[in-house]
Amino acid sequence: MTRLVLCAGTTRTAEIDGISAAGADADLMAHTPSADGEILTYGRPVRAPVVPVSPTGCPTPAVVTRAVVERLGVETTVVDAGLAEPTGAPTVTVGARPGEDIRERDPVPSAPGAFVAAREFGRKLPDDELYLAETVPGGTTTALGVLTALGEADVLGDGAVSSSLPENPLELKRRVVGEALEASALAPGDAAGRPTVALRRVGDPALAVVCGLATGALETDTAVTLAGGTQLVAAAACLRHGGYDRSLSLATTSFVAEDPAIDLDRAAAALDLSVTVTDPGFTDEHPAMAAFEAGEAKEGVGMGGALALAERTGLPMGDVREGLLEVYGRLFEGTDREAPKP
Amino acid sequence: MTRLVLCAGTTRTAEIDGISAAGADADLMAHTPSADGEILTYGRPVRAPVVPVSPTGCPTPAVVTRAVVERLGVETTVVDAGLAEPTGAPTVTVGARPGEDIRERDPVPSAPGAFVAAREFGRKLPDDELYLAETVPGGTTTALGVLTALGEADVLGDGAVSSSLPENPLELKRRVVGEALEASALAPGDAAGRPTVALRRVGDPALAVVCGLATGALETDTAVTLAGGTQLVAAAACLRHGGYDRSLSLATTSFVAEDPAIDLDRAAAALDLSVTVTDPGFTDEHPAMAAFEAGEAKEGVGMGGALALAERTGLPMGDVREGLLEVYGRLFEGTDREAPKP
Repeated sequence: MTRLVLCAGTTRTAEIDGISAAGADADLMAHTPSADGEILTYGRPVRAPVVPVSPTGCPTPAVVTRAVVERLGVETTVVDAGLAEPTGAPTVTVGARPGEDIRERDPVPSAPGAFVAAREFGRKLPDDELYLAETVPGGTTTALGVLTALGEADVLGDGAVSSSLPENPLELKRRVVGEALEASALAPGDAAGRPTVALRRVGDPALAVVCGLATGALETDTAVTLAGGTQLVAAAACLRHGGYDRSLSLATTSFVAEDPAIDLDRAAAALDLSVTVTDPGFTDEHPAMAAFEAGEAKEGVGMGGALALAERTGLPMGDVREGLLEVYGRLFEGTDREAPKP
Repeated sequence: MTRLVLCAGTTRTAEIDGISAAGADADLMAHTPSADGEILTYGRPVRAPVVPVSPTGCPTPAVVTRAVVERLGVETTVVDAGLAEPTGAPTVTVGARPGEDIRERDPVPSAPGAFVAAREFGRKLPDDELYLAETVPGGTTTALGVLTALGEADVLGDGAVSSSLPENPLELKRRVVGEALEASALAPGDAAGRPTVALRRVGDPALAVVCGLATGALETDTAVTLAGGTQLVAAAACLRHGGYDRSLSLATTSFVAEDPAIDLDRAAAALDLSVTVTDPGFTDEHPAMAAFEAGEAKEGVGMGGALALAERTGLPMGDVREGLLEVYGRLFEGTDREAPKP
């Protein structure tokens, strides 16, 4: 059996102006992972008081993942990987707390404990196969922080990570990471071989939980697919620095693979990643799809993994697109916002 | 769509010697609801360090419910309705805390708040139909407490509730309830029309959450089936005392319906309950089934509701029995206990 596990958390790094698009309004961004858990579980927001759709009409990638799991009957589990706002999604507790801005000295003190608890949980899950996904606004910046601390800043190209914004604020991210390393008195590479140090000092709790789950699952011979973009590449780097030396799988979207800011092949070679890229065949005919085509969002909530599962089981991409529009419509029901129409 | 919601909680009332069979060993009883959530979610215990099987081989009713939901693909959600021990099941939070022994003065101070949060959650769930279930060792005693405080002690017969033990310790339960009322300075009937007072003073957190969920769901015209035995009758009484006056549905097992200690027809008439009783056709050929036949467990974790769903969708009871033995076998995997064989 296959289970998709969503590690949903927060880092106050996302509050830095210009860092993240995950949440149209910065004040509401902290609700996005809580809403993503609900959309994945129930197919719509339940408790979270937000419609996670950007001003241009780009929905959270959770709608794509939900459309797929709903059609394939894939089991899903949400882990509280540092949520800051209530969620109506049922969550597994591993002791993760919301992350502070990585420019603080010790922004994720819960990372080592959450890693251990997630690892133990990953060892005990009864599934044959896990798809591990994340939702954490600001997560590509913390991913760059972790890669840099491990001495792997250039694994995706020169200090590169992807972005949920069409205009990737890479210079800003590098500056934030530089300040973060300074605040933790770390030089690039100082955390090599010590992934939990990197996760605690310049990372985020969701990434720590992904790494713990993967470690525990791999130890018990459960197949693992890292379902996501550059944040999951950072998870792969953590697994390598933790000593795991067998092949790793990553499944992501064509939007990440085609992102000119990063070189995914380079990361695949450097980290021995078997990469599956799936193109959902979005068109410009509906704002929800056009926004992805324009480079918004790109990945998250296991979208690339869900698309890979759809491809593997022969679910036509036309059905996925239809499902996306159906779930998208539900996001607006009972709210005062109107769904953008083609 | 149908969702089975399990309200999993604890009350220290269960620690009173001779009250409950839910947990072979009193020290491990607090783990039973946590294990039930895991069995319902994953088909086996994950984190809970117990095998919820009595010395005679009687498993938790969770194995029957899981066997059905696994075959029918019914969605399940576990609500933390006052768990005292960690669970690997994902849980929804409504602010419920473990209940104290009802002989204390204010044993469930979290009941009113949890009722309100569960009601709000019940209003927002997107399903067409909810089956509401409980797992709370000691729960029939607190149910008797609630019924008595509402002035409904005789709704199931003279101060009667069912039991997970073949020999129902009714005298002990009545004595405990008498002491509980005294500790809260309540006379029988003093909480009439005030169900949250009854739930807080002489009830348990799981019953409070069931009542909140039912109230919210019914307010938004979601169909509700109370999936259980006399504890769910107590929930129905709370809904009546809360002013709900349309018909209510209850689905339970033949083991409850045939329990000579109680008169389910009387409760159905008094509370206007439409009752569905389902007989799983257990035989003596395997200890796991023979124990139910001998009157152990009887109900819990939505077993009667799951059986009703199986009946309604045409799943043969032979498949349910096969599923029960399959899930039962999994409980012992990786432990030092051996599954009793026919």
